[in-house]
Amino acid sequence: MKRQAYFISDRTGITAETLGQGLLSQFPAIEFERRTFRYVDSVDKARFIVDEILSLAAEGGRPIVMSTLIEDEIREVFNHPRVMLVDLFGVFIGPLEEELDTASSHKVGHTHGRVDDVSYAERIDAINYTIGHDDGLNTRHYDRADVILVGVSRSGKTPTSLYMAMQYGIKVANYPLTEDDLMNGDLPRSLQSYRAKLFGLSIAPERLTQIRSERMSDSRYASLRQCQAEVENAEALFRKYAITHIDVTQMSVEEIATTLIDRLHLD
Amino acid sequence: MKRQAYFISDRTGITAETLGQGLLSQFPAIEFERRTFRYVDSVDKARFIVDEILSLAAEGGRPIVMSTLIEDEIREVFNHPRVMLVDLFGVFIGPLEEELDTASSHKVGHTHGRVDDVSYAERIDAINYTIGHDDGLNTRHYDRADVILVGVSRSGKTPTSLYMAMQYGIKVANYPLTEDDLMNGDLPRSLQSYRAKLFGLSIAPERLTQIRSERMSDSRYASLRQCQAEVENAEALFRKYAITHIDVTQMSVEEIATTLIDRLHLD
Repeated sequence: MKRQAYFISDRTGITAETLGQGLLSQFPAIEFERRTFRYVDSVDKARFIVDEILSLAAEGGRPIVMSTLIEDEIREVFNHPRVMLVDLFGVFIGPLEEELDTASSHKVGHTHGRVDDVSYAERIDAINYTIGHDDGLNTRHYDRADVILVGVSRSGKTPTSLYMAMQYGIKVANYPLTEDDLMNGDLPRSLQSYRAKLFGLSIAPERLTQIRSERMSDSRYASLRQCQAEVENAEALFRKYAITHIDVTQMSVEEIATTLIDRLHLD
Repeated sequence: MKRQAYFISDRTGITAETLGQGLLSQFPAIEFERRTFRYVDSVDKARFIVDEILSLAAEGGRPIVMSTLIEDEIREVFNHPRVMLVDLFGVFIGPLEEELDTASSHKVGHTHGRVDDVSYAERIDAINYTIGHDDGLNTRHYDRADVILVGVSRSGKTPTSLYMAMQYGIKVANYPLTEDDLMNGDLPRSLQSYRAKLFGLSIAPERLTQIRSERMSDSRYASLRQCQAEVENAEALFRKYAITHIDVTQMSVEEIATTLIDRLHLD
């Protein structure tokens, strides 16, 4: 039997989804049917949603409502006996008010934290740099890069670069190690002056062949033999030039990005 | 006096930072000095961090530790009388176990929720599409777009497009309305067959002039007069062709993206 779970927010719902999904994933035996309601910023909207949730409620158990709602009045609407309210925000306000000896503002605001530390202009600059230096483009401007990711094709360089630029305002170039580069065994000329900025991404050949096959199945490019050879040569290159590298096989883009930030002391 | 606040996670720290910062922003009168510790995945690491936190603790009050740590043993290290532990995760596990009548797994895992719903291949495809169709590039492939963002230069099209591609696997093209397009008053030819996919971004001229001035101050391009004329003409175009549009002046990239998803029923 599926259990209904709702993520409810007065803003984007991203925090409710992320923390809520983290909590639900602690119960792998239960299958949840999930849905997000964003921008729930009035009591009327909240009442409408509660009615809808209750009308859909299965017999198996109360729907679970995971909320990051800030305003008491709106949140109270979900405090209903036929709903399990998981109040991801409000629960902590009381203890914090006591600890800080200050009343909270109870205001919905721009609460991005992390991203607000980086100015909009910095993020835009970083995004433009990163798009312009994706996949080995414009290698002459590497002096402006904060980091240069290197790795074989489909090792995750592009999404990682963009994530770091967007979320942290870091200028990330990325350079794909081609078969020619790898056969040669030397660091490509355009990278040689920037060894201190290089960071290698490595990946298990079995995973690489799977990713490449999604687009080009039965190709030489996607074959396990080819992937094994490329990864082996890339790792040899990383070792030869003492390039810091990580195995990204089991990692999400967010994990690769934050690991890099930690390793390179970029924050 | 500054108050110390720490975000502590066994993974990326993104949830701890986002929710934690949201909570702290409810206390605008207090200045917090924030720091994130990521990948805290052993009792030893936790002990090392607690020691560091306590050694830095100011006289003004206990440091606040906001944790999304999953494993009880690691989290317990921060349950220290000289620390205020805000346990963003553990607090909810007990009530959920009771409600669901199931023991939780207490395991650190890939708990991305939202993003895990979209396959890696879909996200990569969307990113590649979006990079290749940024800023009016390749208008001939708009049949493959899920959405086409239109707006004047610097209205937020590029970061919004990339965010939607990366986080939700949505293929987003974007097309800048140039002065020629705007003077003309007609929808550019390349957009005419795709009116159903268009979504307009509008912005207050005062904010636009500020953004443009960060890069090109004292230029005609950045002048308030020019920004006013462009925004006015763009809005006239949106109305003439009944293009759904929103005012992004006060919105973050995440807010624009999730608002679009809601409006266009993309999730």
